[in-house]
Amino acid sequence: MSRRVGLWLIGARGGVASVVISGLAALQRGLTDNCGLVSCLLTFSGLELLDWPDVAIGGHEIRPGCLVDEVRQFQRSSRTLSDQLLEQIEPELRQADAAIRPGILFRAGDAITRLAAPDIAGDDRPPVEKIAQVVSDLREFRESGQLDHVVMINLASTEPEADVGAIPDTWAELEPTLHQTDCPLPTSSLYAIAAIQSGCSLVNFTPSLASDCAAIRELAKANTIAHAGRDGKTGETLIKSALAPAFAMRNLQVMSWVGHNIFGNMDAQVLDDPENKQAKVATKDGLLGEILGYDPQSHISIEYIRSMGDWKTAWDHIHFRGFLGTPMVMQFTWQGCDSMLAAPLVLDLFRLTERAARAGQSGVLDWLACFFKSPMDVSENNLTHQFSLLQQWAGDLQR
Amino acid sequence: MSRRVGLWLIGARGGVASVVISGLAALQRGLTDNCGLVSCLLTFSGLELLDWPDVAIGGHEIRPGCLVDEVRQFQRSSRTLSDQLLEQIEPELRQADAAIRPGILFRAGDAITRLAAPDIAGDDRPPVEKIAQVVSDLREFRESGQLDHVVMINLASTEPEADVGAIPDTWAELEPTLHQTDCPLPTSSLYAIAAIQSGCSLVNFTPSLASDCAAIRELAKANTIAHAGRDGKTGETLIKSALAPAFAMRNLQVMSWVGHNIFGNMDAQVLDDPENKQAKVATKDGLLGEILGYDPQSHISIEYIRSMGDWKTAWDHIHFRGFLGTPMVMQFTWQGCDSMLAAPLVLDLFRLTERAARAGQSGVLDWLACFFKSPMDVSENNLTHQFSLLQQWAGDLQR
Amino acid sequence: MSRRVGLWLIGARGGVASVVISGLAALQRGLTDNCGLVSCLLTFSGLELLDWPDVAIGGHEIRPGCLVDEVRQFQRSSRTLSDQLLEQIEPELRQADAAIRPGILFRAGDAITRLAAPDIAGDDRPPVEKIAQVVSDLREFRESGQLDHVVMINLASTEPEADVGAIPDTWAELEPTLHQTDCPLPTSSLYAIAAIQSGCSLVNFTPSLASDCAAIRELAKANTIAHAGRDGKTGETLIKSALAPAFAMRNLQVMSWVGHNIFGNMDAQVLDDPENKQAKVATKDGLLGEILGYDPQSHISIEYIRSMGDWKTAWDHIHFRGFLGTPMVMQFTWQGCDSMLAAPLVLDLFRLTERAARAGQSGVLDWLACFFKSPMDVSENNLTHQFSLLQQWAGDLQR
Amino acid sequence: MSRRVGLWLIGARGGVASVVISGLAALQRGLTDNCGLVSCLLTFSGLELLDWPDVAIGGHEIRPGCLVDEVRQFQRSSRTLSDQLLEQIEPELRQADAAIRPGILFRAGDAITRLAAPDIAGDDRPPVEKIAQVVSDLREFRESGQLDHVVMINLASTEPEADVGAIPDTWAELEPTLHQTDCPLPTSSLYAIAAIQSGCSLVNFTPSLASDCAAIRELAKANTIAHAGRDGKTGETLIKSALAPAFAMRNLQVMSWVGHNIFGNMDAQVLDDPENKQAKVATKDGLLGEILGYDPQSHISIEYIRSMGDWKTAWDHIHFRGFLGTPMVMQFTWQGCDSMLAAPLVLDLFRLTERAARAGQSGVLDWLACFFKSPMDVSENNLTHQFSLLQQWAGDLQR
Repeated sequence: MSRRVGLWLIGARGGVASVVISGLAALQRGLTDNCGLVSCLLTFSGLELLDWPDVAIGGHEIRPGCLVDEVRQFQRSSRTLSDQLLEQIEPELRQADAAIRPGILFRAGDAITRLAAPDIAGDDRPPVEKIAQVVSDLREFRESGQLDHVVMINLASTEPEADVGAIPDTWAELEPTLHQTDCPLPTSSLYAIAAIQSGCSLVNFTPSLASDCAAIRELAKANTIAHAGRDGKTGETLIKSALAPAFAMRNLQVMSWVGHNIFGNMDAQVLDDPENKQAKVATKDGLLGEILGYDPQSHISIEYIRSMGDWKTAWDHIHFRGFLGTPMVMQFTWQGCDSMLAAPLVLDLFRLTERAARAGQSGVLDWLACFFKSPMDVSENNLTHQFSLLQQWAGDLQR
Repeated sequence: MSRRVGLWLIGARGGVASVVISGLAALQRGLTDNCGLVSCLLTFSGLELLDWPDVAIGGHEIRPGCLVDEVRQFQRSSRTLSDQLLEQIEPELRQADAAIRPGILFRAGDAITRLAAPDIAGDDRPPVEKIAQVVSDLREFRESGQLDHVVMINLASTEPEADVGAIPDTWAELEPTLHQTDCPLPTSSLYAIAAIQSGCSLVNFTPSLASDCAAIRELAKANTIAHAGRDGKTGETLIKSALAPAFAMRNLQVMSWVGHNIFGNMDAQVLDDPENKQAKVATKDGLLGEILGYDPQSHISIEYIRSMGDWKTAWDHIHFRGFLGTPMVMQFTWQGCDSMLAAPLVLDLFRLTERAARAGQSGVLDWLACFFKSPMDVSENNLTHQFSLLQQWAGDLQR
Repeated sequence: MSRRVGLWLIGARGGVASVVISGLAALQRGLTDNCGLVSCLLTFSGLELLDWPDVAIGGHEIRPGCLVDEVRQFQRSSRTLSDQLLEQIEPELRQADAAIRPGILFRAGDAITRLAAPDIAGDDRPPVEKIAQVVSDLREFRESGQLDHVVMINLASTEPEADVGAIPDTWAELEPTLHQTDCPLPTSSLYAIAAIQSGCSLVNFTPSLASDCAAIRELAKANTIAHAGRDGKTGETLIKSALAPAFAMRNLQVMSWVGHNIFGNMDAQVLDDPENKQAKVATKDGLLGEILGYDPQSHISIEYIRSMGDWKTAWDHIHFRGFLGTPMVMQFTWQGCDSMLAAPLVLDLFRLTERAARAGQSGVLDWLACFFKSPMDVSENNLTHQFSLLQQWAGDLQR
Repeated sequence: MSRRVGLWLIGARGGVASVVISGLAALQRGLTDNCGLVSCLLTFSGLELLDWPDVAIGGHEIRPGCLVDEVRQFQRSSRTLSDQLLEQIEPELRQADAAIRPGILFRAGDAITRLAAPDIAGDDRPPVEKIAQVVSDLREFRESGQLDHVVMINLASTEPEADVGAIPDTWAELEPTLHQTDCPLPTSSLYAIAAIQSGCSLVNFTPSLASDCAAIRELAKANTIAHAGRDGKTGETLIKSALAPAFAMRNLQVMSWVGHNIFGNMDAQVLDDPENKQAKVATKDGLLGEILGYDPQSHISIEYIRSMGDWKTAWDHIHFRGFLGTPMVMQFTWQGCDSMLAAPLVLDLFRLTERAARAGQSGVLDWLACFFKSPMDVSENNLTHQFSLLQQWAGDLQR
């Protein structure tokens, strides 16, 4: 009998998740081609990745509501999915919705807490209780669906930056704090712990902390769990990681690199809060220095412009010096539908992580670097070099 | 005593050559930094490349005139070189000018012939006489300057596309046609033959044919001459070779890629003639299909806009399909001073080719691919991969 | 009983007409707001313009096919109209389709003739026969619909430029040529003559000649027919007529103005033929000199890029000199859905022309200048001043 | 004997003033043409405006330094003025420098106070003393230069927004507060009072308050002083006032208008302080609502990017709805040298204000509206309509 694997989404009714679930249904029904899916590139065809029909969907969500409504709302604001497609996949949407459970929150900040159903927040309950709830939901998902494995992917809105200095470096020290309401971990890390303790693989598609601290990495290692992150590289930063190397390879000195992003989805709304925005800007801004070998003045702004909906437009202005000190300019604009760019990468990460877990690999999957703005354990930011890591992993696996 | 090597420029009073000569003088006097020079990157520091003071300059030019005037004219139209710098390097400009000889023309087309001094054209004299003149000029340059080696770099305006079908495949068959006025070779190839027969290395920085046909490659091999080409990758195409791989690696289907270039220097004036433009568009347009694995609709236009002078502005519009067939758009504009981008690459190619010749290497230097729009013998067009070839060559040489 | 007026479209199943008919149906059913409709601005509210329910639709079309299919095809390629809207207005589309008659062609050039149903071309039949056919269709439309008046609006693809020198200056001289197959008039002018002879008002929304020659103007005058043209000002040129005055008013010298247009609808396909393109470029390029008082170098290109469909993207690069001769740059990109921009103007022109005819006005309606790229009888191209003409007409009428 | 008039600049060694003084010298010596000068347009040729040789220059400056150094510094960072020009006009620069006096500061905020020479600040001295100092400087300038009139133009850095609610509405009430150190007026208003009390005309080229409050307007009226403001309309806002009307006239609904400005001169440095930036954004943002008749979401950001120097680059993204609710996009980038755009307008305002004063006009010169982002007493923001006011004034004066 064929293997059956669950994809568990945190933020399961958000924009990205809506497209992940809709897109998966379209793929299962053969209503769309492979466009945008990295894992469907010819170079990975020998990997025996999971087939679309063998994927089951579930997840956590802090907001009340119904997935079909969310998808319709997304359709209206983004003008992308056709009425016809939605009609065809409505059964899958209803089925996925039935597997979505109320999520948890802890130290999530005002911008996020404001969105949650009233019974969900409550920093007065210790993390350990919240983790237990997640563990229980994951167990039920696995058992009721007779799943061989589950991969949790965090798609929730960006949290305020965690105070990493306050987090103990070992699991032995961290574990006791989970019983206290002043535990320094953010929500994403509680999900990570729950996943690890449930034997699930884990991908962090957001800038939030999740498993990216010493104590939780230690826990993952001890439980032989595969994990990866952080922050899906979907648009402006993707282009940066392809373009910036050209300046480096030509010895053209980047004097300043300015990026201005506007969009109007719920993500943007949350980022409109300064403490959430800071966490995002940090992951977007880091790669230039590594690629160039020096730090040009850089400025990134992200503004919530309602009318843009899910269409994120970025304007980048690159001011550089050439021969004899001559200043020159390159500008680009990127007009992408954010969730349409993110969703296929989520499906790719699911399939690739599942494949690694199936092959018995655990710890940080650093060869997934090309998918992330701030890849864990990888300082290389040249997109081509990052992609070579992925190809090399695939090659090794097929040998 | 230190090695002394000549850099012989075809089109020696043109815009690029003006900046090559001015820039070299500035480097020799320590008036500028290494910005824009690939050969000065840290990664090549162990190669023992030639020092700036050990370079002597000469060349061929079909137009009458004086280098100092050309440089001043360039300065006025491009607003880049300072009055102060020009004053300081005037002695070097006058010295270089004294080493410039009248060039040759053969089947050069109307747009170029129109620019030439009246005594230069003359398709009624057989190629063999023209080659002899170039050989004689090169010998004099070498002897009078007591040079250890000479590298010829072709910077002349783009020729009309040669009828390559009419060119015999072997040197034995080609050689006799040089005595006839209906010889199918263009000017650039006569220069190439002269260089090879004079023992000079050869770099073709233009889209013209030069040494890129079977018979002349054979001649180069027989004479153990190092050569490379074609068409310096300075701006829009450089960016394409960095950007297009990002679409390929994300499985985003490029539906169309439109590039519109405007500039107003002499190069643009020559390209304003349709037969010359066609040759240029061909080298700019080829790389997309190789990188993407399919041929999107592409359109490249190049327009002569007087007021732009040497500032080439390119607008590129990339229309691509993402997940679920969603169409998205990326646009960029590139505002670069063409000669300021080209000149340092000419100096890099000079130094790297000289180094290869010094190491006894000959034939097509395919590891120079990252410098060219249509690199000879290399189908790889991903800039990062091309750069790796260069680094690998450097590594091998230092081992 | 209320007045009922017919809108007769030439090119009645093309992109613009498809949206005109769909949009009119949506307005009649109250399914959309007034966005994009100039005639719905507050400043014209006292004009007693025709109400949407009082408009009847018909027209000529040279291509075989069915309007519902054309609209669906437009929807797919432009991703604009919703499935839901199309379902609701299908009855109106079918009704309009039933009133569409086979069009005529004469000296239409290859690009257009290629599109036509086989029985339509035929330059061997004299114009007078073709005119008679149109007159007969218009009469039937008017009588069967019990219409008080009919306004013909030409939306057909751009014809090759007519040889205006060959057209006689008086109707007395022109009339006899209509009986000959070497008559110098293009198709658009035959339609114009038919409209005038049928007592219909006439609007030329294309760059084609139509009524814009002395002899046909004379005929219109003699028949007290109101007419206007040429070439609807929908996008790039609209912006030019708003922007260029700013440079003039600040004494900033425009050195060059480059416009590059890409799109992929049938209009673009026809313009891909050089003789049709020339006619278009002429109307787009004329206004700069008039606004600025001198002729900067200007370059307009229009390229057929399939993937763009009806989304016309224009990039404009304006290079100008400021104080102390300092060169500066403004660039803009315009991303508009061409038919969505044109269609409301067609409805506006219909209502305003109908209002003028109702008020007994005839001859060239020069106060409609703000709607056209090359307004007949108006040299003013500053958009604000053109709009003032319209406001003044409206004011006079209401007094 | 010919009339001789003084131009007194506040911020006399800043970027704009540097170019005003350099440009005036170049005009006096006939070294440049009239490009960028509105007052030199043909339409104003009958006004008998002051000739360049009849202008004398002086001003106030809070920073220590020397004008020649400032101009050289400007030249280096902006790459605009030629070495040759600077050499020729050095005598005029030295002469102007000799007429520059130490300025005053009061409630100027940290960002500005930080720049000042140590002896200049001092909010502990009452305004009346500071005004007296300015009055004395102006008297000396007038007498020593035997000037018939003086026009003061404020070019100083943007002040933090004044607390206008705290400023009394009548001069009788305001005057006593000048003797107190808690007077609510900002520096610009003290300069304004001094100018008025000295019989000087007054132009406020900045967003600061200056004469724009009831009490000081009253004072100007009582003294029959001509004054105008606020905030010179040089670049992005100029274009907005030309473009936004096009959307209004086409009934295209602007959903959002985002403007992102980057530059690196001292102005930008001061605006980098949030309280100064707020004042600027307010004048840039006001005009949209007036032109469109409703308030779209708008967002303006201004960022200090060192490498840009005086070259201000603005990216504007306009998201609008067309027919049937179709969303479309227009974007523009403006790359202008800020001081080169501002300086000629300063000379224009000087000449036009002088002409008005000569004709005995006083009070707010509202017909100068086209020069300002927030014109005093004029709500009209359509650039063409504003320009008509200027033409009408000129026409009336010549009648």
